[in-house]
Amino acid sequence: MQPKCYSVIIAGGKGTRFWPLSRSQRPKQLLKILGRRSLISETASRVLSISGRKQTLVVTVAEQLNALRKELQRLPRRNFLAEPYGKNTAPCIGLAALEVVAKNPGAVMVILPADHWVADINGFRNTIGAAVEIAMRQDSLVTIGIRPNYPETGYGYIMKGKSLGGKTAAYQVKRFREKPSVSMARQLIRQGSLWNSGIFVWKASLLLELMQRYQPTIARGLEQIKKAARGKSLGAPSPQIRNIVAREYKKMPNISIDYAVLEKAGSEGKVIAIEADFGWSDVGSWAAVHRMLPHDENGNAGNGKWLALGAKNSLIHAEDRLVVLLGVEDTVVVDTPDALLVGDIRRSQEVRELVDQLKKKGYGAYTIK
Amino acid sequence: MQPKCYSVIIAGGKGTRFWPLSRSQRPKQLLKILGRRSLISETASRVLSISGRKQTLVVTVAEQLNALRKELQRLPRRNFLAEPYGKNTAPCIGLAALEVVAKNPGAVMVILPADHWVADINGFRNTIGAAVEIAMRQDSLVTIGIRPNYPETGYGYIMKGKSLGGKTAAYQVKRFREKPSVSMARQLIRQGSLWNSGIFVWKASLLLELMQRYQPTIARGLEQIKKAARGKSLGAPSPQIRNIVAREYKKMPNISIDYAVLEKAGSEGKVIAIEADFGWSDVGSWAAVHRMLPHDENGNAGNGKWLALGAKNSLIHAEDRLVVLLGVEDTVVVDTPDALLVGDIRRSQEVRELVDQLKKKGYGAYTIK
Repeated sequence: MQPKCYSVIIAGGKGTRFWPLSRSQRPKQLLKILGRRSLISETASRVLSISGRKQTLVVTVAEQLNALRKELQRLPRRNFLAEPYGKNTAPCIGLAALEVVAKNPGAVMVILPADHWVADINGFRNTIGAAVEIAMRQDSLVTIGIRPNYPETGYGYIMKGKSLGGKTAAYQVKRFREKPSVSMARQLIRQGSLWNSGIFVWKASLLLELMQRYQPTIARGLEQIKKAARGKSLGAPSPQIRNIVAREYKKMPNISIDYAVLEKAGSEGKVIAIEADFGWSDVGSWAAVHRMLPHDENGNAGNGKWLALGAKNSLIHAEDRLVVLLGVEDTVVVDTPDALLVGDIRRSQEVRELVDQLKKKGYGAYTIK
Repeated sequence: MQPKCYSVIIAGGKGTRFWPLSRSQRPKQLLKILGRRSLISETASRVLSISGRKQTLVVTVAEQLNALRKELQRLPRRNFLAEPYGKNTAPCIGLAALEVVAKNPGAVMVILPADHWVADINGFRNTIGAAVEIAMRQDSLVTIGIRPNYPETGYGYIMKGKSLGGKTAAYQVKRFREKPSVSMARQLIRQGSLWNSGIFVWKASLLLELMQRYQPTIARGLEQIKKAARGKSLGAPSPQIRNIVAREYKKMPNISIDYAVLEKAGSEGKVIAIEADFGWSDVGSWAAVHRMLPHDENGNAGNGKWLALGAKNSLIHAEDRLVVLLGVEDTVVVDTPDALLVGDIRRSQEVRELVDQLKKKGYGAYTIK
C-alpha cells in the first residue's frame, strides 16, 4: 500500500442501457449483473489493497449518495463526495482532486469508473502499482490502455508514441481517437493502439494545475469551493459549503476529462499510457454482459432460475420467477418485478433510445430520470 | 329456444399448450386469452339462447368442478357433471347422454368443447338451430363442419358425400380423415372437405343406442350408473353414486367420441355434416391466439400493458407488469406471476413437450398435473 496514493471511484452514471434493471434508485454500478456482488462493490475490492479504506474516495451525485454509502459500508462516510448533479467527468474529477490535495498535497490519485469489469485482479494491481510509481516520479498524466481483442467501435483509442523503456510497457501518448469506424478500428489495432480504459493515475496537484491552464472556468469554480471549505473535507459538508458547490457547479461546463484535459495535455507530450491486458470491459450493454458470463453448450448465459430449450446465444436475467426460453436465438430477457424486456441482443445498444421512447409513450414511471 | 334441446359443454381439458398461463387450477377454458372473458364463459353465452340456463349442462373432471361452478354462476349447481378423471370424450359424452335422457327421453343434445372461439355468433346460432332440426327429424348423428381457410394439419377433416338438399348445406359424411399432411390437407380442401369442429348434435337416446353397438364396455358402465342413479340427476350426486361412477370409469377405455362412435357410424351412413363458416378456431396454441387477436401495423398483438419497438409478428400476454419488446420477431411472450415463457411462436406446438421437460428438470411445481 502506497501512503501517498488515493483511489477515487467515479460513480455518478445511470446505466440507461441496462433498463429495466437500472432505474433512478438502482443505477448500473449497483447492479449484480456479473455475479453475486454489485459492480461498484467489485471495484472497491480491487482498489482497497492499493489505497486502503481510509484513502479510497467515491464521487457520486446527491441522489445516489445514500444508496452508495449503504453498498460500501466498509468506507468511512466522509469518503463519499456528492456532486449536486452530474456534469460529466471533468468537474467530478476536479472536485476529487481538491479533496485529495487537502488531505495530502503531494498525493497521487487513481481514478476508476465504478462500473467496469476486470478478470485478472493481480494483473490489474500490478499495472496500477506501476502507474502510481510513474506518476509519483514525473509530472505526467498516466492513463491505462488496454490491448484490444476486437475492433470495438464504441471505445476511444490511444495511439502510442515512443516507449519510455524500463520494465513497464509505458509509452508517450501520440494522440487520442474517439469511437472510430470498424475499418479505422482495425487499422488502429494493427498499429498497436490501445483502448482507453478511463482509468487514470496522476498527482492531484498536477491535475489542478492543468485545469487552470486548459479549463479556467472549472478551475475558478474549484478555487471558490476550496476557499469556502478552508481545508475541511468535502465529504459530509455543511449546508453552506453544499450551497457553494451547487452554485459553482451551475457555472461549470458539462465536459469529460478526456476532452477537457487529456487531449490537450497529450498534444503537449504530457500523457503517458501504460499498456495492459488484465481482461477488461466497460460492461457497456447486455451484449457485453453476455460475452462475459459463462455459457452453456448452446451459447446461453444467465442469472437466476432459467431453462433454455432449443434456444441459442441468449442472455437471461431472472430474479424471483422462472424464465423459460423455447427456440429463440440472440435474445436478451431481463425480468424485473414491474417491467420485462425481451430484445434482440444485437440491438442492445438501442436500449438507451428505448428508455426515451418509454417516456414519450407515457411509461415514464418505469424509466430513469 | 327449443324445449327439447340440451347443450352440453365439454370442459375437462388442461390446455398444456398454454403454459405458463394454464395450470392445474387454471385450465385453458378458464383463461382470458382472447378478451375480457374466459373461453368457457364465451361458450356458455353462445349457447344460452339455444338451450336456456336450465338446459345447459357442463361436464368436467372433479378437480375443476368448483372453479367452473364459480366461473359459470348463472348455471344451476346440478347442471355440472363431474367425471372422476378424464377418459377422453366418449365416456364423458356418454355420461351427459344419460343425464339428458333422464330429463327428457326424446331430447337432442348439442355438444360443444368449452375452449373454442367463434367470431360470428348469429351464424353460429343459425347453424346449430338447423342441426337441431335435422337431429330431431331423423336418426342421424350431426356434426358441424367448418369450411377451411388454410391447410391446417392439426385438425381432422370431414369428406362430404351426397347433399341432403333443402336450405341447409347438409351432407352425408363419406369419411373422416385425422390430421393429414400439408399436401393431403390441400387436396382435401380442393375436394370440398371440411374441418371437424368437434361440435356435435344428436338425440341422446340415439347416442346411447350406438354406444351399445360400437362400445359395449362403455355402454355397460353407463348402464350401471343409470341403475344406481334411479332417475336422479348426476349433478351433485350422493357419495354412493359418485363411488359407482368412479368404479365404472375405471373399466372404461380412454377413447374419443370420434373413434368410438362417429367413424363407425359414418361408415354406415349415419352421420350428417352441416357446412358452416362462422369464424371458428379451436384455439390450439399461442400461434392460433396470435392469428385471432387484432394486430398493430407490424403484426404484433397482445393483452395487457406492452410496447413493441422494432418488433414484428409477435404476441404478448402481459398481466401486471410492463412488457417491452425490442427488435424481436415471431416471438411469443407470456408473463405470469411466477413463470415467464419467451418462445419462437412458430414452435408453439412444442409448449406441450416443454411442460414435460420442466417436470424432468425439477420445475414440476410450475407445471400442470
